[in-house]
Amino acid sequence: MTKYNVAVVGATGAVGTRMLEQLTNTSLPIQSVKALASKRSAGKKVKFGEQELIIEELTEDSFANVDIALFSAGGSVSEKYAPYAVKAGAVVVDNTSFFRQNPHVPLVVPEVNAQALDAHNGIIACPNCSTIQMMVALEPIRRVYGLKRIIVSTYQAIGGAGQQAMNEADHELREILNDGVDPTAVEAHILPVKGDKKHYPIAYNALPQIDVFTDNDYTYEEMKMTHETKKIMEDDKIAVSATCVRIPVLIGHSESIYIETEKIADISEVKRLISEFPGAVLEDDVANQIYPQAINAVGKRETFVGRIRKDLDAANGIHLWCVSDNLLKGAAWNSVQIAESLHERGLVRPTKELKFELK
Amino acid sequence: MTKYNVAVVGATGAVGTRMLEQLTNTSLPIQSVKALASKRSAGKKVKFGEQELIIEELTEDSFANVDIALFSAGGSVSEKYAPYAVKAGAVVVDNTSFFRQNPHVPLVVPEVNAQALDAHNGIIACPNCSTIQMMVALEPIRRVYGLKRIIVSTYQAIGGAGQQAMNEADHELREILNDGVDPTAVEAHILPVKGDKKHYPIAYNALPQIDVFTDNDYTYEEMKMTHETKKIMEDDKIAVSATCVRIPVLIGHSESIYIETEKIADISEVKRLISEFPGAVLEDDVANQIYPQAINAVGKRETFVGRIRKDLDAANGIHLWCVSDNLLKGAAWNSVQIAESLHERGLVRPTKELKFELK
Repeated sequence: MTKYNVAVVGATGAVGTRMLEQLTNTSLPIQSVKALASKRSAGKKVKFGEQELIIEELTEDSFANVDIALFSAGGSVSEKYAPYAVKAGAVVVDNTSFFRQNPHVPLVVPEVNAQALDAHNGIIACPNCSTIQMMVALEPIRRVYGLKRIIVSTYQAIGGAGQQAMNEADHELREILNDGVDPTAVEAHILPVKGDKKHYPIAYNALPQIDVFTDNDYTYEEMKMTHETKKIMEDDKIAVSATCVRIPVLIGHSESIYIETEKIADISEVKRLISEFPGAVLEDDVANQIYPQAINAVGKRETFVGRIRKDLDAANGIHLWCVSDNLLKGAAWNSVQIAESLHERGLVRPTKELKFELK
Repeated sequence: MTKYNVAVVGATGAVGTRMLEQLTNTSLPIQSVKALASKRSAGKKVKFGEQELIIEELTEDSFANVDIALFSAGGSVSEKYAPYAVKAGAVVVDNTSFFRQNPHVPLVVPEVNAQALDAHNGIIACPNCSTIQMMVALEPIRRVYGLKRIIVSTYQAIGGAGQQAMNEADHELREILNDGVDPTAVEAHILPVKGDKKHYPIAYNALPQIDVFTDNDYTYEEMKMTHETKKIMEDDKIAVSATCVRIPVLIGHSESIYIETEKIADISEVKRLISEFPGAVLEDDVANQIYPQAINAVGKRETFVGRIRKDLDAANGIHLWCVSDNLLKGAAWNSVQIAESLHERGLVRPTKELKFELK
């Protein structure tokens, strides 16, 4: 049987380390794993199960003999190096936003649209964390009842902003709890967005900004949920408006989702559909206070769905609460799962015509 | 000028102590303040500005010569003692949910519906914290454009569950940060609801349960937002569906609100209306990353509104983000403000016919 040489680009990050971890428990047949990162990290060691891998510096020549390259080192790294990986014969699974809206690039949540992989041109994009779990929760409903509209408010974990942001949150909480610093007096340097002008504390706070703002007063994070949903569900008519909010949770995104279906849905049937959908776990028994919780989702690959109930007024309106580990299903696991699907579908092969610009 | 004898029932609680604090900075002419609580607290001292008040035990006879009684000691205490206060000639401002849906009882956010006070029968109810701030944010829009529908997801602070819950959250965070306890291994005894069967950690978590569940799978907290909005806005046709969530913030509720107006609204005009509405503060300048934040609202009486933008699809749809100190505008300040309004309208007077059952 064919076994693959796999490269992880960004192997020292919050997602990269988890990609390596997920690769130790995968149906993908693996020959070798190469850990790539910036020059700064080269020579350092990272764990790969019982083994240690020595980080190699990412260059244009890193992808000789690589079959599958998982990228999670920021959009500009993917922009520059993913085309070189494709040129060298690898298939790229990119966890950044850079290629997601590129018409040559499938945007894939395997449970939802694995068939989109068939038309790949060497690069497959992994959607944004907040989109992925919403797709797993809603696809079983969409398939039976159709989907007209989504209004979503997110409760996103700090881990989505990377390891540095998690360290900062930890530091902020210690300052408040142990040194008695007032929450408004805490100095912040990373959140809400590392590259934006102002920084605010996340400890004891809720920040209604993830990623920078676009011209329409939505953030890029919010617009990702809109655009990515339409692409993954292959339906430009689905209305999606999001409010994306960071809260003081380290790992595990929660989402309060309102949908309107085409056909009026039966709630017990919706629960059954979700419970039977791959990757989704129904946690919905309010009489026994069972509903998805961020702390319980950490380390799990599934998306947990609960609080499913009819809107009080709209006959075709449904509310639900959806939680997943944003670093696993939202990033590392979904990327490895895409690699598994590529293998299952016989799609791990060099691409003949390069559709992406070499820079 | 008339000066009033004021009683605070539940004077040792998170809200009661803040009622006393708010009474030190009020336009209400005050003769005396009496601090009432359970037998357990009688004899203890509480601060009232520079003074100290000695707590007296609450009894049926506590209200002789009291003009205004502010209640915040739980629904069962209000149920039993508020009618005795009215019988003794006091006007009651009740911060519990017990009388809110009683047709003899006005439910008042002074900026929104102070006129409802005119028909009072001795008891006025202060709405639920999560409803109050939403009313301040939406009333300026409703007055000009009409309001058909509200879908709200809340990000509620722990303080809404009382001082004990705040202490528990503090303890949980210390266990995790200082003792290395895993968030799932933290033992919880209060949240999500003191009186419910199961308890879950709030540290690093988001709990989609506030108050117990009703028969329709919404929580009482969620149904309060529905019922109270209709009563305050005097419009049973307004559709309101809520998802109420507790997050690891000590004080300051945030809300992601979606509304549909009767007439299509102009966003810049909406911003102007909110900025001019009493009690509301517009914080909306995304180019400069200005939006309401929980930590900045603590200790303030106002409701802060921002992230105001058109829905991406519905022409009459608007999204906004609203933040307020749940213990002040959401409870203590709104109660004292009702007392101020009663005074201004000449409504602080004994009620002749007792409409409430003495138990």
